[in-house]
Amino acid sequence: MLSDIRKRARKAGMSPGTVFFTGEQRTDRTRVTVTDFDQTTLQEVDIAHADECARFKDSETVSWIDVEGLHDVTLLEQMGGVFSIHPLVLEDIAHSGQRAKLEVHENYLFIVVRAITPGLREEPEEEQISLVVGRNYLLTFQERPSPVFDSVRQRIQASRGLVRRMGVDYLAYALLDSVVDQYFVVLEDIGEELEELEDILIKAPTPEFLEALHDLRKEVMTIRRAAWPVREMLNVVLRGESPLFDAATLPYLRDLQDHTLHVMDIVEEFRDQQTNLMELYHSAASQRTNEVMKVLTIIASVFIPLTFLAGVFGMNFEFMPELHVRWAYPAFWVVIVLVTAVQVYFMRRKGWF
Amino acid sequence: MLSDIRKRARKAGMSPGTVFFTGEQRTDRTRVTVTDFDQTTLQEVDIAHADECARFKDSETVSWIDVEGLHDVTLLEQMGGVFSIHPLVLEDIAHSGQRAKLEVHENYLFIVVRAITPGLREEPEEEQISLVVGRNYLLTFQERPSPVFDSVRQRIQASRGLVRRMGVDYLAYALLDSVVDQYFVVLEDIGEELEELEDILIKAPTPEFLEALHDLRKEVMTIRRAAWPVREMLNVVLRGESPLFDAATLPYLRDLQDHTLHVMDIVEEFRDQQTNLMELYHSAASQRTNEVMKVLTIIASVFIPLTFLAGVFGMNFEFMPELHVRWAYPAFWVVIVLVTAVQVYFMRRKGWF
Amino acid sequence: MLSDIRKRARKAGMSPGTVFFTGEQRTDRTRVTVTDFDQTTLQEVDIAHADECARFKDSETVSWIDVEGLHDVTLLEQMGGVFSIHPLVLEDIAHSGQRAKLEVHENYLFIVVRAITPGLREEPEEEQISLVVGRNYLLTFQERPSPVFDSVRQRIQASRGLVRRMGVDYLAYALLDSVVDQYFVVLEDIGEELEELEDILIKAPTPEFLEALHDLRKEVMTIRRAAWPVREMLNVVLRGESPLFDAATLPYLRDLQDHTLHVMDIVEEFRDQQTNLMELYHSAASQRTNEVMKVLTIIASVFIPLTFLAGVFGMNFEFMPELHVRWAYPAFWVVIVLVTAVQVYFMRRKGWF
Amino acid sequence: MLSDIRKRARKAGMSPGTVFFTGEQRTDRTRVTVTDFDQTTLQEVDIAHADECARFKDSETVSWIDVEGLHDVTLLEQMGGVFSIHPLVLEDIAHSGQRAKLEVHENYLFIVVRAITPGLREEPEEEQISLVVGRNYLLTFQERPSPVFDSVRQRIQASRGLVRRMGVDYLAYALLDSVVDQYFVVLEDIGEELEELEDILIKAPTPEFLEALHDLRKEVMTIRRAAWPVREMLNVVLRGESPLFDAATLPYLRDLQDHTLHVMDIVEEFRDQQTNLMELYHSAASQRTNEVMKVLTIIASVFIPLTFLAGVFGMNFEFMPELHVRWAYPAFWVVIVLVTAVQVYFMRRKGWF
Amino acid sequence: MLSDIRKRARKAGMSPGTVFFTGEQRTDRTRVTVTDFDQTTLQEVDIAHADECARFKDSETVSWIDVEGLHDVTLLEQMGGVFSIHPLVLEDIAHSGQRAKLEVHENYLFIVVRAITPGLREEPEEEQISLVVGRNYLLTFQERPSPVFDSVRQRIQASRGLVRRMGVDYLAYALLDSVVDQYFVVLEDIGEELEELEDILIKAPTPEFLEALHDLRKEVMTIRRAAWPVREMLNVVLRGESPLFDAATLPYLRDLQDHTLHVMDIVEEFRDQQTNLMELYHSAASQRTNEVMKVLTIIASVFIPLTFLAGVFGMNFEFMPELHVRWAYPAFWVVIVLVTAVQVYFMRRKGWF
Repeated sequence: MLSDIRKRARKAGMSPGTVFFTGEQRTDRTRVTVTDFDQTTLQEVDIAHADECARFKDSETVSWIDVEGLHDVTLLEQMGGVFSIHPLVLEDIAHSGQRAKLEVHENYLFIVVRAITPGLREEPEEEQISLVVGRNYLLTFQERPSPVFDSVRQRIQASRGLVRRMGVDYLAYALLDSVVDQYFVVLEDIGEELEELEDILIKAPTPEFLEALHDLRKEVMTIRRAAWPVREMLNVVLRGESPLFDAATLPYLRDLQDHTLHVMDIVEEFRDQQTNLMELYHSAASQRTNEVMKVLTIIASVFIPLTFLAGVFGMNFEFMPELHVRWAYPAFWVVIVLVTAVQVYFMRRKGWF
Repeated sequence: MLSDIRKRARKAGMSPGTVFFTGEQRTDRTRVTVTDFDQTTLQEVDIAHADECARFKDSETVSWIDVEGLHDVTLLEQMGGVFSIHPLVLEDIAHSGQRAKLEVHENYLFIVVRAITPGLREEPEEEQISLVVGRNYLLTFQERPSPVFDSVRQRIQASRGLVRRMGVDYLAYALLDSVVDQYFVVLEDIGEELEELEDILIKAPTPEFLEALHDLRKEVMTIRRAAWPVREMLNVVLRGESPLFDAATLPYLRDLQDHTLHVMDIVEEFRDQQTNLMELYHSAASQRTNEVMKVLTIIASVFIPLTFLAGVFGMNFEFMPELHVRWAYPAFWVVIVLVTAVQVYFMRRKGWF
Repeated sequence: MLSDIRKRARKAGMSPGTVFFTGEQRTDRTRVTVTDFDQTTLQEVDIAHADECARFKDSETVSWIDVEGLHDVTLLEQMGGVFSIHPLVLEDIAHSGQRAKLEVHENYLFIVVRAITPGLREEPEEEQISLVVGRNYLLTFQERPSPVFDSVRQRIQASRGLVRRMGVDYLAYALLDSVVDQYFVVLEDIGEELEELEDILIKAPTPEFLEALHDLRKEVMTIRRAAWPVREMLNVVLRGESPLFDAATLPYLRDLQDHTLHVMDIVEEFRDQQTNLMELYHSAASQRTNEVMKVLTIIASVFIPLTFLAGVFGMNFEFMPELHVRWAYPAFWVVIVLVTAVQVYFMRRKGWF
Repeated sequence: MLSDIRKRARKAGMSPGTVFFTGEQRTDRTRVTVTDFDQTTLQEVDIAHADECARFKDSETVSWIDVEGLHDVTLLEQMGGVFSIHPLVLEDIAHSGQRAKLEVHENYLFIVVRAITPGLREEPEEEQISLVVGRNYLLTFQERPSPVFDSVRQRIQASRGLVRRMGVDYLAYALLDSVVDQYFVVLEDIGEELEELEDILIKAPTPEFLEALHDLRKEVMTIRRAAWPVREMLNVVLRGESPLFDAATLPYLRDLQDHTLHVMDIVEEFRDQQTNLMELYHSAASQRTNEVMKVLTIIASVFIPLTFLAGVFGMNFEFMPELHVRWAYPAFWVVIVLVTAVQVYFMRRKGWF
Repeated sequence: MLSDIRKRARKAGMSPGTVFFTGEQRTDRTRVTVTDFDQTTLQEVDIAHADECARFKDSETVSWIDVEGLHDVTLLEQMGGVFSIHPLVLEDIAHSGQRAKLEVHENYLFIVVRAITPGLREEPEEEQISLVVGRNYLLTFQERPSPVFDSVRQRIQASRGLVRRMGVDYLAYALLDSVVDQYFVVLEDIGEELEELEDILIKAPTPEFLEALHDLRKEVMTIRRAAWPVREMLNVVLRGESPLFDAATLPYLRDLQDHTLHVMDIVEEFRDQQTNLMELYHSAASQRTNEVMKVLTIIASVFIPLTFLAGVFGMNFEFMPELHVRWAYPAFWVVIVLVTAVQVYFMRRKGWF
């Protein structure tokens, strides 16, 4: 998050519409793949120069142009030229750290979503994915080669599902759907960690417990921030503000919206659970303090008075008649036992042990 | 909940509209029962194959087709064919773990609700129930044979109430009503457990108290999540967005909406009560710590100085004139009593006991 | 509250529209009183059978039919027949534990409010009051003889105020107004208890303090739940959705709405005050713990080292030269006094006493 | 606040529209002053009887009739007669403890605001001010002679500002503006007290700190309750629902609305600050407890084991060889110093001092 | 903040529209710079008298008149005369401490924003910037020479970006954009301080930690208060309520709105993080108290009973047979070791160390 803000701050004072790559370069080479298909034909080409895309722009087939790697600003600007994309849109594509959003432009829709995938290391990885949805073409921009779109590509190749039979709008839906699907995968991981934490809490909570809980909360909030605007964005399309989406695709978008609502429900549920775990941790902690106090109090309350008594008979006064009585010492022990018994009785009654 | 998320995550990457059963199989055999009736006739048949349902689709009588068990995906797809149900709807029916919702389709309404029934074991059981409300037919899909619809079926058989005299819309209402009625039954159980916890709190709160409280809170939240969308869903119908619901049925739906509002009121009330109990528990806990501290302080404050005094007169200095005075030992005791009295007096004044 | 839920749960599975009394019977005999009046005439009759009401239904005079006691289900159904009231409305009348609400029916308005009156015992008493407002008649249903409507009845008898000059709508307003007025009376009681608790907090808070505070909070929430829907209900009438209310009565309804807003303001104020008192209680409690700790620490810190010193000179080593020095014992006391003085100085500087 | 509720409760059961003074009488004599002016003429008269006002009602000049003291109910009713004011409005004027509100009546606007002025004693004083804005006249009702309107009156007398050049609507605005201006004066006082409390917190927080903080919070909430409805009330006029307000006055009302938003901003800021101070106080308190505990632990941990050692060599066993060794006593001291050094070392490493 | 309120309070009772400088004078001399340009020409002049501005008012070129320093009230009033600005607007310009807002006037838009720049000392500095956007001119008013607008001025001088090619509306956008850009710079600083605090928390939290955290929270809230109304203000323009903004500029405004949403997102994120850090601090603190308690309890529990035992055998009873047994003293040590071992065993099992 902080790195996003740093990038953003570095742009302060630049002229708006300046295409300026602000991410860390996550791939060596920018790779542009075109997947051009209709119900019967399928063609996959790698492209070296933006101009080669031009012929896909107006073809009747569905053309999905996927750009992996955003640091090649010249390429982005050339693509912008070919598909007449507004400079501000190009700026947003190049500047990772955007909010998810949908903008209706004259000839195309511009969509930004944040893909969250389970990372190789512990934390889930966040990535900005931009979609430009035109009449017969769909541009996608990713920061690095990522597996988010693999399932859709496979369905296209295998000619499985509706994706080959329907248009660009359905393809856009399918890609968004695969992004939202990944949220569930990450949420599953979080849910499992939450269950582990619950087990740890019952057995033996460590101070690391709280930090782990807070880290999970951050992850949940990341998903929330990513999923929340998707709902809004779908509303715009469902209200029919864009002619690019066909009536036949709308039920699918509605379904996708249900999924984002579901994501939000799970997020709420997890926050609730985290609050619960936190509260249970805190009361367990104060419970322990209380127990420690009780042990101290019991031992100190019993032995401090006895020590006083022993101290009394250790005094060196010349005239202490009881010291010279035969049964005094056994009597001392009787008193000790009695005092202890009375104290134990009262503590028991107070429920201390 | 976590199991729901796991199911959902397992579907990531599948083509949308794939009918895929994600629940745990809760019944051996899928059972399809048709209850076909009008004011005068009543016919109940078990059906083995989806095609047998076709004749009920367009009959003028009210046909209630109840499917118990959702793991037979082929059957679901056949039913979908017979009643021309959208693949996404079939997917939702098969995929337990949906949010409650209502979708208006061209020829039918699709309703999902979450039934919550008091479980045999401690926790209430949650189940997804899907309704497809057509012109003269009503399909219901349940994960397992459950008693939620028994009361409605009995009223149909006994020809009691309005259900035999009115149409499919009233039947749909009656079924939804019986689902919402179950929420009250579960809430009653929770309310009684809350009262028990209140009693426990006054008598002797154990650490288990908090966990029980948190479990109850989870249950209340489950009902909240189930009941909340029902309200919204009824709004859609009451705003007249579906021609399938007759004006005569609307007052009943309004009444049902009142019930869901009532459920939400009780849920709020219970959350309030839980927060109260939590706070009372915590102040009782810190109250106890305070008392333990007081006992320790009283005993230590009284006896530590006395022990010091006894220690002084136990010293072996050669020249301690007081050791040889006759009245020194009695005087020592007088001092002890005085010091103790003064301390007790001050502690009393501070209200420590 | 719990008893309400129990009643509600007991109805699960019943056919909707079944009139079924769910309250506890709060009066022996159902009593039906008709107060029939216009500007000049006034007639008060007790009625034994529902049919006798028929003649009041279409008379031009204002007819107020007050039913006290709801356990006589047959009577309710007969009344329903005479005034053609929808079965669901009758069900709501008989089933105490409803939310306050207003329903616009074709020939009448159905209003449910919850009257809260200061109880004889400590807690305020809650009662459901139902109104059926027709063209020239007004039915009121109360669970038991209660003084809520007394002031209106007296104004009718004494021909005081506008009530005799205006129609049924003004009478309905006057009755609702007297219900809302009672909220203020109960709030006054609560406010006084809050002030008492504030005094107790300053003097000497007991553990009972918190329970009393929580009980008050429950009472405040009861009023909130009762008053909140009244606001909404008046909105419906003020938006002109019912032809039964005359333009001349609307300013009075607006005034009544102001009163409910006032009730909500006071409720918010009281909740705020309760939160404050709670926080003050908790910091007072931790303040006390801190003080107890301080006393313990001061006494223990002073005397434990001194006791050690005394112990040293009580040792029986053969070769302890200082024991045989004349000024050793006085020197011991000097050391004791010095050590104590230094400790007291440091504790003072830390602001411990 | 409680006194407001008491007044309100005392009115329960009265006929609506009964003009009944519920405040405490804050001035001896009701004083009615008429300030009648246009751009060139100015006339100020004291009036003894309501009928004398009649001639100002329809005059073309702006007539501001200011009534100080509300206990003379007869006078109020006579004024009501002269200016044909609705009985409910008169009731609201006489009944202090109203919410701020604006009512659009046929020939006049009725406005209630709550003036808050810095009190002579510590707490700010609250007062209800009612305005009746007619075509050419403006009635104001105050509970007692207060300086809130002085600045406006001076501007009229000195013919300063726009007030003499514009109509009744601008005068109403100017009066409301002077009421809102007073909120800032009171907020300034509160802000200064908050700064003082912040200083106290850093130096030496006393238990009184919290009570002072809570008192401030109450005052802030009083301003909030007073200012909040003003915003809404101005909305009604700005939406053009009243023909009494001229287009030329609207920018001033908009400006006034900005001021109330500013008041709300400050109120939010103050609440935030109070929460912060509260949290800092609580962590300072637990910090102190922790320090006290540390001192106790350090001293007890060091000396309790040493005392045990001294106790051992004070035992009277006949056969304790070490007692008769020459270097035993010096060795004892060496052990004491070593044990202490080790303990101090470990405590240091734990960062205890 | 408090100083803002003080200024505001000082104005209470003044006639509305009085231009009165309430800030602290932050620059010696008021400086008025005119930057007049179109695509080809550029002219920068310093101006000594307001009348010189008149010729820029109706010229076809874009005229940006920047006023630095607001204490010269006469100048402001003369400017107001030349550009026919409403007195209330002039009052708002002179009175620093306004909320950010946008007002649509007949011939111009009036915009107030709060610029926040990283201060030289620790705290960020806040400044009020007012814009008056006319047909061909743009007035900006700043309290002091500040670098916020430098980047825009450089772009104009270097003829970089769109600013020279587009009109006054784009210039206004560019200035607002540079204000919002500064928010990111300040947020970056805050983010870095938050990370530092997180590090400190893990290493060794001091009591200053909390104060630093609260200071950061105040700064975040300052940005929130500044950025929040910008969103609303842009909405007004985007809804097309002002003809001064060209369709070509709207995408840029939408982009700016995205930025403010981004600011709000970061603000929310930071508040969340602060709450987390606070909670972690508090649990770390109570963790430490608990540890201190444990050390005390362990040492006291072990040694207090042993000291009692030693005390017993230090008593001077004449008849204590064990004192004269040879193996008594070694046996004593065996008992000591055994008792200690048992205690250590139990504490271990309780997980105390």
